[in-house]
Amino acid sequence: MSSNVLSSRMHTGLTFDQIANSIGKDEVWVAAAFYGQAKFSSDELKNVSEILGISVDESLSVLGDHWWPNRGIGPMPPTDPVIYRLYEGVLVYGHAIKAVIHEKFGDGIMSLIDCKVKVAKKPDPKGDRVLLTFEYASFLLEFH
Amino acid sequence: MSSNVLSSRMHTGLTFDQIANSIGKDEVWVAAAFYGQAKFSSDELKNVSEILGISVDESLSVLGDHWWPNRGIGPMPPTDPVIYRLYEGVLVYGHAIKAVIHEKFGDGIMSLIDCKVKVAKKPDPKGDRVLLTFEYASFLLEFH
Amino acid sequence: MSSNVLSSRMHTGLTFDQIANSIGKDEVWVAAAFYGQAKFSSDELKNVSEILGISVDESLSVLGDHWWPNRGIGPMPPTDPVIYRLYEGVLVYGHAIKAVIHEKFGDGIMSLIDCKVKVAKKPDPKGDRVLLTFEYASFLLEFH
Amino acid sequence: MSSNVLSSRMHTGLTFDQIANSIGKDEVWVAAAFYGQAKFSSDELKNVSEILGISVDESLSVLGDHWWPNRGIGPMPPTDPVIYRLYEGVLVYGHAIKAVIHEKFGDGIMSLIDCKVKVAKKPDPKGDRVLLTFEYASFLLEFH
Amino acid sequence: MSSNVLSSRMHTGLTFDQIANSIGKDEVWVAAAFYGQAKFSSDELKNVSEILGISVDESLSVLGDHWWPNRGIGPMPPTDPVIYRLYEGVLVYGHAIKAVIHEKFGDGIMSLIDCKVKVAKKPDPKGDRVLLTFEYASFLLEFH
Amino acid sequence: MSSNVLSSRMHTGLTFDQIANSIGKDEVWVAAAFYGQAKFSSDELKNVSEILGISVDESLSVLGDHWWPNRGIGPMPPTDPVIYRLYEGVLVYGHAIKAVIHEKFGDGIMSLIDCKVKVAKKPDPKGDRVLLTFEYASFLLEFH
Amino acid sequence: MSSNVLSSRMHTGLTFDQIANSIGKDEVWVAAAFYGQAKFSSDELKNVSEILGISVDESLSVLGDHWWPNRGIGPMPPTDPVIYRLYEGVLVYGHAIKAVIHEKFGDGIMSLIDCKVKVAKKPDPKGDRVLLTFEYASFLLEFH
Amino acid sequence: MSSNVLSSRMHTGLTFDQIANSIGKDEVWVAAAFYGQAKFSSDELKNVSEILGISVDESLSVLGDHWWPNRGIGPMPPTDPVIYRLYEGVLVYGHAIKAVIHEKFGDGIMSLIDCKVKVAKKPDPKGDRVLLTFEYASFLLEFH
Amino acid sequence: MSSNVLSSRMHTGLTFDQIANSIGKDEVWVAAAFYGQAKFSSDELKNVSEILGISVDESLSVLGDHWWPNRGIGPMPPTDPVIYRLYEGVLVYGHAIKAVIHEKFGDGIMSLIDCKVKVAKKPDPKGDRVLLTFEYASFLLEFH
Amino acid sequence: MSSNVLSSRMHTGLTFDQIANSIGKDEVWVAAAFYGQAKFSSDELKNVSEILGISVDESLSVLGDHWWPNRGIGPMPPTDPVIYRLYEGVLVYGHAIKAVIHEKFGDGIMSLIDCKVKVAKKPDPKGDRVLLTFEYASFLLEFH
Repeated sequence: MSSNVLSSRMHTGLTFDQIANSIGKDEVWVAAAFYGQAKFSSDELKNVSEILGISVDESLSVLGDHWWPNRGIGPMPPTDPVIYRLYEGVLVYGHAIKAVIHEKFGDGIMSLIDCKVKVAKKPDPKGDRVLLTFEYASFLLEFH
Repeated sequence: MSSNVLSSRMHTGLTFDQIANSIGKDEVWVAAAFYGQAKFSSDELKNVSEILGISVDESLSVLGDHWWPNRGIGPMPPTDPVIYRLYEGVLVYGHAIKAVIHEKFGDGIMSLIDCKVKVAKKPDPKGDRVLLTFEYASFLLEFH
Repeated sequence: MSSNVLSSRMHTGLTFDQIANSIGKDEVWVAAAFYGQAKFSSDELKNVSEILGISVDESLSVLGDHWWPNRGIGPMPPTDPVIYRLYEGVLVYGHAIKAVIHEKFGDGIMSLIDCKVKVAKKPDPKGDRVLLTFEYASFLLEFH
Repeated sequence: MSSNVLSSRMHTGLTFDQIANSIGKDEVWVAAAFYGQAKFSSDELKNVSEILGISVDESLSVLGDHWWPNRGIGPMPPTDPVIYRLYEGVLVYGHAIKAVIHEKFGDGIMSLIDCKVKVAKKPDPKGDRVLLTFEYASFLLEFH
Repeated sequence: MSSNVLSSRMHTGLTFDQIANSIGKDEVWVAAAFYGQAKFSSDELKNVSEILGISVDESLSVLGDHWWPNRGIGPMPPTDPVIYRLYEGVLVYGHAIKAVIHEKFGDGIMSLIDCKVKVAKKPDPKGDRVLLTFEYASFLLEFH
Repeated sequence: MSSNVLSSRMHTGLTFDQIANSIGKDEVWVAAAFYGQAKFSSDELKNVSEILGISVDESLSVLGDHWWPNRGIGPMPPTDPVIYRLYEGVLVYGHAIKAVIHEKFGDGIMSLIDCKVKVAKKPDPKGDRVLLTFEYASFLLEFH
Repeated sequence: MSSNVLSSRMHTGLTFDQIANSIGKDEVWVAAAFYGQAKFSSDELKNVSEILGISVDESLSVLGDHWWPNRGIGPMPPTDPVIYRLYEGVLVYGHAIKAVIHEKFGDGIMSLIDCKVKVAKKPDPKGDRVLLTFEYASFLLEFH
Repeated sequence: MSSNVLSSRMHTGLTFDQIANSIGKDEVWVAAAFYGQAKFSSDELKNVSEILGISVDESLSVLGDHWWPNRGIGPMPPTDPVIYRLYEGVLVYGHAIKAVIHEKFGDGIMSLIDCKVKVAKKPDPKGDRVLLTFEYASFLLEFH
Repeated sequence: MSSNVLSSRMHTGLTFDQIANSIGKDEVWVAAAFYGQAKFSSDELKNVSEILGISVDESLSVLGDHWWPNRGIGPMPPTDPVIYRLYEGVLVYGHAIKAVIHEKFGDGIMSLIDCKVKVAKKPDPKGDRVLLTFEYASFLLEFH
Repeated sequence: MSSNVLSSRMHTGLTFDQIANSIGKDEVWVAAAFYGQAKFSSDELKNVSEILGISVDESLSVLGDHWWPNRGIGPMPPTDPVIYRLYEGVLVYGHAIKAVIHEKFGDGIMSLIDCKVKVAKKPDPKGDRVLLTFEYASFLLEFH
């Protein structure tokens, strides 16, 4: 989606979660769609355009049935400290997580396409905590 | 830790969780320590050495009070498909997660050092799912 | 697997296909296992060791139940001309293949873990042709 | 071809295969041409322009007899998950495929220029499968 | 902030410190905000716009409540000699600094988000010296 | 210096500061010398060898009058989180620091060779803070 | 081939051309084989071993029927000035050569596998010249 | 030269060789000049402008006496298959060519500046062949 | 400085040395300033603008008192053959030059900021030679 | 040359210049040869071996008539501060030097192979200066 759409959301003051609720989708999925990493259906696109006060026709011509997301954005390694902390989790704990996954699930892999991502605020007396969850489908390697 | 230690664990057949329980630590933390990404205390090191049937003296001389982990291992982008799926989550959802975190927590950052990582198996009729959780402390930028 | 195992196969003169048939697996999968990209079960490992005339004990201690492949080998972009031709296929036809896959399968992805790879010789009067096939499971993105 | 041409196709709703049939070419080849990775002849260009309702003159001036494709697009390693799965196939199975090709064809190479690429949908009770095929001419190294 | 804002500051002739004093913030923090590495509050933004003689409305629409800094700018390794000297300090003294930090603070990390950065001029008979200070909060790794 | 020397220090339990005091040098400079980033004089080398209980002859033959440090170690960007925080300070605040330095010192540069680096613990009721200081000589560009 | 083989050639004082003549092959091809970029047949390997005074058995076990060259060596861009001049020819004249090839041969490619490479000395009153020749088979893209 | 000039040549239908003949220069040199890798003299520029029907004044102002080529274009490694075949020749045969050059010319280097590059079509019953020739001046290292 | 300024110099036909003489600066320093690698004082800027026939006001607004050079331009390794020869000098002779500098000056470094660079033509019967000189201030590492 | 040779020189205490004088060569050239960047003749090798007290036979077998330097060492960009200052000279002044060279010598290049490199100490009341000189042969591009 264009920066045009990102700034429209800012002016409405709507959160990703509020938009997600009004179209029956997930909060992170909607945020991903705003950054061009997921694809609205035609109906969702109409709803979102209406909510943001953007012309439906223009949105449809660009993000309609025939457009497919070209996923993966920004420089790697990330330079933004917030995104770097996510990346650093892979750098530091990647082998440990892989070892535990193999121990529990065997020689396979998890799917990023059948994966739900959630960000929640967990209250804590010492200060709120960020709770980030990836829930992946798992698959065993079967090659025969 | 040396590949010597990794293979010792294989021969005992002990899971990371069983070792973690016997020293009162977390499963992923123990797996991280086996890959040199975390540091056992002297007492933990004695316990683990005993459990794996390795000489305590040798372990202590290498991994004792004066050793500090040099964290971050393996090539980036990862070539192993399991670790790549973790990395791809940052690539595809990084900006969306950042946007949602800022929306919920303001202009700050989460800490990777005060962060608990868990891998769980979530039963599902269509096939078990991998549930990966990062729970970070959050901080607001205060620079005055 | 070690170069020790690779050279043992050379001395027996057995093809990957002959080894694959004797353990009921696929030709490319067996070649992948010889390069450390796939994991034999304990039984398969015993059979292969016997066929190659290698000690079962040593193989098991290294490649037994607790070992998991760390996949992805060699420099990228590849420098070997044969592997480069595979890579170049992605470079030149990647966007076209993605466009056709989305057209036929919607907004999803194919799985590399549930994927069968085959290399066949196709006779042709102008010279034999290499027929390389990837057969992937497909998934629709469902994130709700 | 310009994004102008890509969006024109979207509005007609024509598939790559339908366009390919009307000019007697291959589906993936046509998709490649739309991404600037292959070259239409003058006649094909006239036909395609007509089908898409684009001015022939403009197309010809840009993509006429004197233009040659500058092939190879997008970042490597790919960041889009679909294209990454193609790349990952080279990363994980590259050495295995090379080993099997040498075993069957000797010390040579396959040609990417004399290579047919196809994407087909293979019905399967557990879910449709993506069947991707590369059929290369093979050559022995003869250097004398 | 746009180069528009950077040049406005040049014409006023105000130092970063003077601007910082008038909004009750830190000198380096203000310089960082001018390069898009920190976020003014709405009130600060109004003050700064006034000081620089820029329209408040325009600034607010771009840098208002909904904008979050995407931090990390410029090529790495830096090519500018001044920034390279900072980078070279990490390259040459990084391991030594890490070793002393671990010796004094244990197995933990310092926070870049709770970190004050200062640049001062220290008079010296042989020539003024640049005094650059980072004051970080420290955290022990607690993972249990 | 070799890992041999690093482990010798561990067994003595001496801090970098204690070694620095006994040879009249700076704490960070001594830590740097242990990582091969600085050069002991012959006399210093004798003292350090004695303190660590290492043969003077061997040390002198390797680190004597004719050896010069080949500075700059480890991968960049750093993968270790502690060293990364130093690097991130350059990434996020580099342009701001450069702007303030030019504002205060004119068109010049600071010297990394005439630079004192210090790491101190600053007590704070909310938790100790890491105080990292670089004190550089400054130079104006004079090119005439 | 091992550095063992390279030094054996040095002691015999034989040129690549002399070895090439005695086995009926090309000079550059033989040099390539000495650097592991081409594959001797079993008979050629016996002849070369004899000429260099190396044990045939050892050579055969390493470089016999089952070994395939893993081509492509050394860092890129090359650091050696001689190899860099070859690389620079591609950098500076690559687009020009491509343009002329397309002009003369149409939309196709040349084959590196069916390619003869020669290095000759061309006498010249101002100083001998290096004459480097690549003679490639050409192919038209035919994808239908 | 601008793409403006490249498209002008396309409309005239003139080959690089025809342009080269009319100004008394070499075919590859002219192609290189069209890609900004070589410099026309003022007289040549006038002739070429006339041939292509472009304004002499505009050309002269941009490409006149004071302009010097900034050579070296496009990404490396090349992604276009034709240019990659040139690059691959360096990758695969670079060490062999260097070894033969040293054998024939001693410890020196060839010059890329005093180097003639030619592309010719060599008829062959099995299909025309591309004959690419680099003729370099050679120099011995003399450093005394 | 903008390409606008570079082309203005071309039309005057003035050499860098002539401009340098008229403002009392060094030839290479002036060339560096034209590429944005050095900073004119306000007075110099007025003189240069007058000489080139450019508006003083515009120059001053862009390159006046508040602008600081962001040094370091172009890709590395350089692709232009002339700049590459400079770079290659570092690649090939870097360690040798470092060894001789340490031998003559001890454990220190030379300053790039207090460094005079000159390019001269040295007549030679075999052809003029390029004489490139760097004259650096030297500093001993003093860290105590 | 091996580190064996480098340490032998250290024990003799001979400078590069003293060795250079005894074999009638240049100081930097000799330092380059010690780092494997230049080639001694057989006679020079005998002399140097004698001076350093190393066996002539061993030296000759490794560095004799058939060995050619594989030039270009160490990582780029350099991490050592001394070598980085050389590199930074190219980064900062490269375009300026190129512009002055073209102004004085036309469209050509300088040769690194016919190039004399010197390092001298230039006394100066404010502190000795490092005088680094490259004297290159120059060539005009002649391509016809």
